[in-house]
Amino acid sequence: MTINPTHDPARRSWVESANTDATDFPIQNLPLGVFSRAGREEDRRCGVAIGDQVLDLVEAARQGLLEGFAVDDFTGPLNRLMAQSPDRWRALRALVSDLLSAEGAAGVRGRARQGEILVRQDAVTMHLPADVGDYTDFYASVYHATNVGSMFRPDNPLLPNYKWVPIGYHGRASSIVPSGTAVRRPVGQVSANPAGPPTVGPTARLDYEVELGAWIGGANALGATVPIARAGERVFGVSLLNDWSARDMQAWEYQPLGPFLAKNFASSVSPWVVTAEALAPFRTPAFARPEGDPAPLPYLFDAGDQASGGLAIAVECWLASAGMRAAGIAPMRVSLGSARDLYWTFAQMVAHHASNGCNLKPGDLLGSGTVSGAEKGSRGCLLELTWRGTEPITLPTGEVRSFLADGDAVTLRASASAPGYRTIGFGECAGVILPATGQE
Amino acid sequence: MTINPTHDPARRSWVESANTDATDFPIQNLPLGVFSRAGREEDRRCGVAIGDQVLDLVEAARQGLLEGFAVDDFTGPLNRLMAQSPDRWRALRALVSDLLSAEGAAGVRGRARQGEILVRQDAVTMHLPADVGDYTDFYASVYHATNVGSMFRPDNPLLPNYKWVPIGYHGRASSIVPSGTAVRRPVGQVSANPAGPPTVGPTARLDYEVELGAWIGGANALGATVPIARAGERVFGVSLLNDWSARDMQAWEYQPLGPFLAKNFASSVSPWVVTAEALAPFRTPAFARPEGDPAPLPYLFDAGDQASGGLAIAVECWLASAGMRAAGIAPMRVSLGSARDLYWTFAQMVAHHASNGCNLKPGDLLGSGTVSGAEKGSRGCLLELTWRGTEPITLPTGEVRSFLADGDAVTLRASASAPGYRTIGFGECAGVILPATGQE
Repeated sequence: MTINPTHDPARRSWVESANTDATDFPIQNLPLGVFSRAGREEDRRCGVAIGDQVLDLVEAARQGLLEGFAVDDFTGPLNRLMAQSPDRWRALRALVSDLLSAEGAAGVRGRARQGEILVRQDAVTMHLPADVGDYTDFYASVYHATNVGSMFRPDNPLLPNYKWVPIGYHGRASSIVPSGTAVRRPVGQVSANPAGPPTVGPTARLDYEVELGAWIGGANALGATVPIARAGERVFGVSLLNDWSARDMQAWEYQPLGPFLAKNFASSVSPWVVTAEALAPFRTPAFARPEGDPAPLPYLFDAGDQASGGLAIAVECWLASAGMRAAGIAPMRVSLGSARDLYWTFAQMVAHHASNGCNLKPGDLLGSGTVSGAEKGSRGCLLELTWRGTEPITLPTGEVRSFLADGDAVTLRASASAPGYRTIGFGECAGVILPATGQE
Repeated sequence: MTINPTHDPARRSWVESANTDATDFPIQNLPLGVFSRAGREEDRRCGVAIGDQVLDLVEAARQGLLEGFAVDDFTGPLNRLMAQSPDRWRALRALVSDLLSAEGAAGVRGRARQGEILVRQDAVTMHLPADVGDYTDFYASVYHATNVGSMFRPDNPLLPNYKWVPIGYHGRASSIVPSGTAVRRPVGQVSANPAGPPTVGPTARLDYEVELGAWIGGANALGATVPIARAGERVFGVSLLNDWSARDMQAWEYQPLGPFLAKNFASSVSPWVVTAEALAPFRTPAFARPEGDPAPLPYLFDAGDQASGGLAIAVECWLASAGMRAAGIAPMRVSLGSARDLYWTFAQMVAHHASNGCNLKPGDLLGSGTVSGAEKGSRGCLLELTWRGTEPITLPTGEVRSFLADGDAVTLRASASAPGYRTIGFGECAGVILPATGQE
């Protein structure tokens, strides 16, 4: 088998910081994002993370270093690039890899222009990768669905549709924010008694949810489906997603139409989109359904997707209270899960979403739902980790957490690894909790 | 009390078709929409319906007939105008009313330029009024909620949260289409047995839902709430909305996260936005809660909203099968309901939606949910009208309908009326059902 040179673990960059073990962004990764330079907030451009630098794609195109691509492909958010084809995305990756390579003529040209085309990551502001037209959140971890179901519906934890339908619902696009945006504790109706009456106040059960978010590329017209065999091509790339949740508000409001205010106050995404092509070496078989589970229905079944529609991505959640930060204590890792534990592949989610003719557009975001596995340490939200607050977590300061406190900082991280390949990372998806308005 | 001249029932237009009883669009209405001329699909402009004509606001501004407004305010969708203030919206209405008035100097100027500023409605294509950032659908008719609940959950029809929470959920923005767009019957999973297994095929229970859609004006930043006393100002105007639904798919998929593919294959809106100012004479008291119902919580209670947050809008649904059309039989009115029957006002929906800090943006669309009343004839969907198909409707051809058949044309109409005022209409929200793909 010939390895794609962009995945070759021996390839090094002339950007030295990309060659260290510590970086999330070696030359094998090349995630895309949208940045602006200090004082030029409106001049948003697409860029590529490489070590501790950003490759400015607008400037690289302007310098004639990205043959076949124009400056216009890279101004503003990634939607225009996402609207192009997988072939174009692969072509761009190959050009960028060569441009940043420590060897070869393209690398020599790139290095000679480094003053123009590189900018330090700590000197830029990162924005949302795309204008999100629609945001859909799935529920793809059967472990998460079973755990949450057993708390909300003890007699009926996993509903009969779960193993047939990739369950999902529409989320709020306007309140998706980039990593680093502080999150205000929401106020809302909660009720200790399921029959009411409710009270109104700041949520006492604020939670995070560790998710992956798939960015849609390409478009299908309204009324046109996306066959499962082609659905994987609609995933442009993947970011980290934190679907902040107010569990007490959720429990009171969610029947019969689903979560609403418990979720739509904020959802955070990491700014770097790890592309589908960068993830190719880390594809794994789809979830192994236990004996007795139904096979996916034909419109959700593709042999190729079953063979390699899963992703070997490890996802971590780190927590640091204000007290820990004040005492100089490092964040505590509270969970380590894996996207391998998702019952449905992203291709299945795409094919299902479009199976009724729903039009998916470039820049749409599909959340995986909370990534939880069978082990307690892999549970991707506090609701599960503390079992609805009955098993609180103890922090290094001695503080305990059932749910998030004001000042808590939550940081998601992830990496993809496979034997024979360079591990690649996702950067961070971080947010700190601000007190509810009027409670400061 | 001095009547606002734009509401004066005695005011007439020099556009003669606006002075007939038959028109939805007398000079007292002046709804806003987005149109393009034949062969100029990309040149989308804001316009005002007047009789059987459209006032081209771009051209009127270019001619200097709309003092204080620029051509840029009216190019493309209505989002830019929606982002302005209620004062600006009222100022525009006053200018347009004078420009189209049969009396006064402004009317004389307008009439002199009619060749430039008017275009016939039957010569233009209407588009969506706005780029919809987010679409939220509420569930504001307690009659609808009770009827549907008693079918889906016989032992638990109206959930305990209903009278406390303006229940709503996020819908799909990308599949919102303007009136006249044909709707393809969706394919999906359905299950006769609630425990499964499902089958996959075209929905056999395709339905419409008669709704009003409120277009959001102005913006609140993420984290900022909208006090109930100011929430009414966030309604720019109202259109008709048909939230097409596949009931069999809905029943199987909707637990636990709410409706998804049963709804997101298409939602139709009428192209004309009847503005909040045009609706001012038709404001009525909020729904009279029966003895024993709780009062709205403080964040949902405003004396002014209680006094006049309701709307005297009659909504009708008309059905015409392909057989009826072939036989030259006029559409049959299948329901007549009223927005007075909504348990929650639009101001309450806005205040609730933003109560957790969710940012509402110009061009967002808030559906009322199906407008149904206490009487059978006022039920705004077939699920209720035919009681889940157990009481089919008979059409003039002798055909019966439990749910929609291929070729059925559904047309929503509405009008607002009050003593002493000219009745105004909403135009049409129409769609015809196409067979499922591969079934033609």
